Amino acid sequence: MTRSAVFDHPNDAFATERDTSLDPQDWEVFRADAHRGLDMMIDYLRDVRDRKVWQPAPAEVRAEFKAPMPQQGKPLGELLKTFETSMLPYATGNTHPLFMGWVHGGGTPVGMVAEMLAAGLNSNCGGRDHIAIDVEREITLWLAEAFDFPRESSGVFVTGSSMANMIATLVARTDILGEQVRTDGLRATGQLVGYASTEAHACIERAFEMSGVGSAFLRRIPVNRKHEMDGAALRAAIAEDRAAGLLPFVVVGSAGTVNTGAIDDLARLADICVEEDIWFHVDGAFGALGVLSPELKPLLNGLERADSVALDFHKWLQVPYDAGFFICRHPDLHRRTFMSTAAYLSRAPRGLAAADIWPCDLGPDLSRGFRALKTWFTFQSFGAEQLGATLAQTCRVARHLEALIRRSTVFELSADVTLNIVCFSVKGDTTGRVNREIVMDLHESGVAAPSTTKIGGRPVIRAAIVNHRTQMRDMETFVAAAEACAARVMAERAAPVAP
Amino acid sequence: MTRSAVFDHPNDAFATERDTSLDPQDWEVFRADAHRGLDMMIDYLRDVRDRKVWQPAPAEVRAEFKAPMPQQGKPLGELLKTFETSMLPYATGNTHPLFMGWVHGGGTPVGMVAEMLAAGLNSNCGGRDHIAIDVEREITLWLAEAFDFPRESSGVFVTGSSMANMIATLVARTDILGEQVRTDGLRATGQLVGYASTEAHACIERAFEMSGVGSAFLRRIPVNRKHEMDGAALRAAIAEDRAAGLLPFVVVGSAGTVNTGAIDDLARLADICVEEDIWFHVDGAFGALGVLSPELKPLLNGLERADSVALDFHKWLQVPYDAGFFICRHPDLHRRTFMSTAAYLSRAPRGLAAADIWPCDLGPDLSRGFRALKTWFTFQSFGAEQLGATLAQTCRVARHLEALIRRSTVFELSADVTLNIVCFSVKGDTTGRVNREIVMDLHESGVAAPSTTKIGGRPVIRAAIVNHRTQMRDMETFVAAAEACAARVMAERAAPVAP
Repeated sequence: MTRSAVFDHPNDAFATERDTSLDPQDWEVFRADAHRGLDMMIDYLRDVRDRKVWQPAPAEVRAEFKAPMPQQGKPLGELLKTFETSMLPYATGNTHPLFMGWVHGGGTPVGMVAEMLAAGLNSNCGGRDHIAIDVEREITLWLAEAFDFPRESSGVFVTGSSMANMIATLVARTDILGEQVRTDGLRATGQLVGYASTEAHACIERAFEMSGVGSAFLRRIPVNRKHEMDGAALRAAIAEDRAAGLLPFVVVGSAGTVNTGAIDDLARLADICVEEDIWFHVDGAFGALGVLSPELKPLLNGLERADSVALDFHKWLQVPYDAGFFICRHPDLHRRTFMSTAAYLSRAPRGLAAADIWPCDLGPDLSRGFRALKTWFTFQSFGAEQLGATLAQTCRVARHLEALIRRSTVFELSADVTLNIVCFSVKGDTTGRVNREIVMDLHESGVAAPSTTKIGGRPVIRAAIVNHRTQMRDMETFVAAAEACAARVMAERAAPVAP
Repeated sequence: MTRSAVFDHPNDAFATERDTSLDPQDWEVFRADAHRGLDMMIDYLRDVRDRKVWQPAPAEVRAEFKAPMPQQGKPLGELLKTFETSMLPYATGNTHPLFMGWVHGGGTPVGMVAEMLAAGLNSNCGGRDHIAIDVEREITLWLAEAFDFPRESSGVFVTGSSMANMIATLVARTDILGEQVRTDGLRATGQLVGYASTEAHACIERAFEMSGVGSAFLRRIPVNRKHEMDGAALRAAIAEDRAAGLLPFVVVGSAGTVNTGAIDDLARLADICVEEDIWFHVDGAFGALGVLSPELKPLLNGLERADSVALDFHKWLQVPYDAGFFICRHPDLHRRTFMSTAAYLSRAPRGLAAADIWPCDLGPDLSRGFRALKTWFTFQSFGAEQLGATLAQTCRVARHLEALIRRSTVFELSADVTLNIVCFSVKGDTTGRVNREIVMDLHESGVAAPSTTKIGGRPVIRAAIVNHRTQMRDMETFVAAAEACAARVMAERAAPVAP
């Protein structure tokens, strides 16, 4: 078929209004279905506590999702039914109060409504002059206020802190090498080297991989007993690298490590970065928003001196997934790391292509949903005071869990509890095998979902209290279930192997 | 305040059930508000044609979004009212049938419902064993089917093609240099070099910047009259680079360029890549899904031979923002580019941490919303046939616009119309200044929103027909409005300057 012939056939099947759009043929039928879907989700969230935290999808349900691409459409009502029976029961479980795996936020009903509004509006927040950009800027202002950053700080929504930490790596790279690195690449320069603690998140390593610096040049600085980066060791590593002719370009402090919730001594790191003239970035994926709580804010002392911060609104702040953020106190440097001069990104003096700085000047994305809206609704619905109180509450629940573990005859603590993460182990489980079995059993029981992590090389049980729904009394349920699992696992191990 | 003292005060303000969650205090009050919000959005989408495409937000509305962080919460009903009066009227406008700026999808009411479900479910799709991961895998299967890729191809949702093209750059980097590049970085290797046409999207350049290769090492290959990459010039560039000791590692074909919708001769590029043993990536941001239309599929001949493809479901397929995708025919190489061994990402034999490949093994994100759901609902609601017909319809509307421009006494075409993008200019506007004025006037009129781009260095008017709502008859409205603007602009230019 030649190109010019493609549309030359006379049979225009799309001439009628009905066929030429994907809007509903009958808006009122659609409306009724949509409302049914909304009610289903409201009931689901209201009754979350009555269900299992998690259950595996049966093989026949999984098989439904291995079908060929559908050629014909199905009514929305039928699809909602499939969603209800084959998806809703087999979710991650992080909406449930007894989900404590990894660091997952629980979401809120308000966040769900906001996301629906955003999807209807369907804004592309890469740039242009429309209100979604103003809302995103307002969130940046709020964060600058909360972090005691300059009002002119630049900020941008991304998927999550993995991407925000990648952006930090790139802006820090521009800081030391200039914009020229964008054109010339890394072979034309000295070898960059950066620093983070042994407890820092693996996405820092990934940022070094993706950016071409190489993860071998991310120095993993040892931590003290509280899992905080050792300042003296950091200084020594920098001195050694400088002596070897390398170019130290970024120190990444952790505000809430993924394993134990530890917060580096940010003020100390800030001092070192000033003395050494190195970019100070803080990976505050879940911990940075602790500034909203007057009780927690002192733990984050020094954050206000960071050059940039990565954080996630979908963790402690309960905004629905995903809503990561990067904020930078040097807007010009930030912009010079990403801004492009492509014709279709050029700015007009007026009209839809007006405005000066677009979000696509501040990060890798050009197509971007309206993440600011669900974040805006979250702040506006609850206010910073209640949000801060919610963060403090998760820490209080963690303290309660800590106390229960201290009293337990079966378990012992594996790390200090700084914030909201409690790591513990079966006493005497030197290999961590019993811990792993307990966690899998708990998942399959549907009662509670902690995760495992490794501390000192040994798998331990980790409970991250991130969900706003988690109550003090849930910790009694959790520990009792964990102790029952432990007894069962240990009995099985002690039992003679069946002939 | 010492760390241990933080939670030791006796006044526990969070002991009551009411205060310890962000769920509604009264679910029925919340339910009523949520349904009102849904109705507002359904009416908004139903009546989209009756409104202006776009209007600038007045200064007093913008000022509302410069307030300090709210300390106290507000009722949802009040926030919905603010959304209705201060946000809805000032959106990007891409839901409107006469929005033709850049390449923006229009979204669908079904997509909005699906996004609401996803936000309520609040799955983190970075990994673990839950149904959202199965749904994402099913979309990968469907794409593999549509592209004639192997069934075992790997795929991952990302924000958009900017990120998908970045992933392609990284996987191609692994292909030539091995996994070692993740650790060692780019200074330890030869200089990589890649190829794309002069019409390829700027995000390819950005991928070269971010990955440390350097944009100077993205060769911009000239195009023919149809804006397709010149194969002979590509061969010559590769030969020259090899002779200079550089390492050619990726050729990026464009399937639907942003300026004119041109599609490179993908079969030719595939041949060259096989001969030269270079990774063949296709940036099919909006064009790749043309395979769903039997009429358009022949234009994409050769796509089935690509090593990887980047695409956006939020453009031609009308999935709400954002929903980009990367698919790769070499799953092992793809995984080896991203997989991490961090303890908290380790896999368990059973329970929530089971399953073999997680999406975080295939891309940079660990926190990821459930983008697959809105995509799944879109395919299931309409079926591939109707979706393909919708794509073809946008091309037919573009052909109609082309015909109107050919008949116009004011305008002339600036480029061939391959797919759904029509570039045109006021006759004799050698500087493009009149074109730019017309576009800004059209935006401010609210009647239609095309954009500008540069062709041969001159700003021209560009209409990208991407929205499923755009009808044949809208083109008459558009051209008449554009002609009226042209007459006004030219009259103003001809008039003597006021004293």
